[in-house]
Amino acid sequence: MKYKLILASASPRRKELLEQVGAAFEIIPATAEEVISSSSPKDVVMELSRQKAEEVARRAWEEPVIVLGADTVVALEDQILGKPRDQKDAQRMLGLLSGRTHSVFTGVTLIVKAEGRQQSRSFYEETKVSMYPIKQQQILSYIRTGEPMDKAGAYAIQGRCALYIKEIQGDYNNVVGLPVARIFQEIAESGIEIL
Amino acid sequence: MKYKLILASASPRRKELLEQVGAAFEIIPATAEEVISSSSPKDVVMELSRQKAEEVARRAWEEPVIVLGADTVVALEDQILGKPRDQKDAQRMLGLLSGRTHSVFTGVTLIVKAEGRQQSRSFYEETKVSMYPIKQQQILSYIRTGEPMDKAGAYAIQGRCALYIKEIQGDYNNVVGLPVARIFQEIAESGIEIL
Repeated sequence: MKYKLILASASPRRKELLEQVGAAFEIIPATAEEVISSSSPKDVVMELSRQKAEEVARRAWEEPVIVLGADTVVALEDQILGKPRDQKDAQRMLGLLSGRTHSVFTGVTLIVKAEGRQQSRSFYEETKVSMYPIKQQQILSYIRTGEPMDKAGAYAIQGRCALYIKEIQGDYNNVVGLPVARIFQEIAESGIEIL
Repeated sequence: MKYKLILASASPRRKELLEQVGAAFEIIPATAEEVISSSSPKDVVMELSRQKAEEVARRAWEEPVIVLGADTVVALEDQILGKPRDQKDAQRMLGLLSGRTHSVFTGVTLIVKAEGRQQSRSFYEETKVSMYPIKQQQILSYIRTGEPMDKAGAYAIQGRCALYIKEIQGDYNNVVGLPVARIFQEIAESGIEIL
């Protein structure tokens, strides 16, 4: 039995990562308002990934199917940094991250629907990211590129911000937004074959 | 005084990394035969990066200029893995790397030419890469994509092989072929302004 993979996200980065590894998939973005009841980063990202996957799984009536939901946040000590509200907020976030080590958490939920039954598993990956010090003038010039505005923590590791990333520990693609290696390990472990 | 940056490499990955961070540069690929007299990976990559940068610096008569030479190898314990000779060799390398942690070394030489004088600095970056176990059938199917054939260690972390990368420790772009963050830190430290 071969399963169809559905990505429950409109993120172009997540789409590119699945394409990069040669996966066949469709996109049905989740659209519901996100509701957060957790406070630790790993619980928040798993909770939001579950909400996205569940919403899309309700709308996916073709079977067998795997629905993939994901959510990414940046965490510095106990602060969670999502997408910046505006340029000022992006400046604040980049100032916080400059010269320090933070964590990026991506939560993933896989919902498998087949023969009228539904199974779900959620997990998260954490990657530690160390940045070189970034000068105020560099922060402002980076914000002017527009790149920070739709990114958790106000930076794109796969974009110009690569200039300031000293090292990471963990999965790079997890920082981009999708831990593809772990996801396909989990799918293979559950004995599922993808189209 | 603003310097022109010249990349002494024909590698499309190195070109893309410099473009990603918004650098202005020209490409003059080194063409000479590489001569290795060192045996440790870090000495080999620094030596080869120096040969490439020196060859191109001799041909670059516009000043002021910075010539950037780089070389990347994969090292597993004391074995150095360069580009595979053929598909059989790629299969051997991927078999060695499967389920283990190896190191990727990129050596960089920066040659600065200005006012008739020439200064050179070489350094290397090491990134540790841990792979999930890869099945023989997956290795063969990966080799059929053609991706391994022109890559040190027979894999591209930025390509399909992302499926098998469990985690890294260090700079991701160093594995792709150019530690861009470190390079621009070194250039900034030497007080040089690039065009």
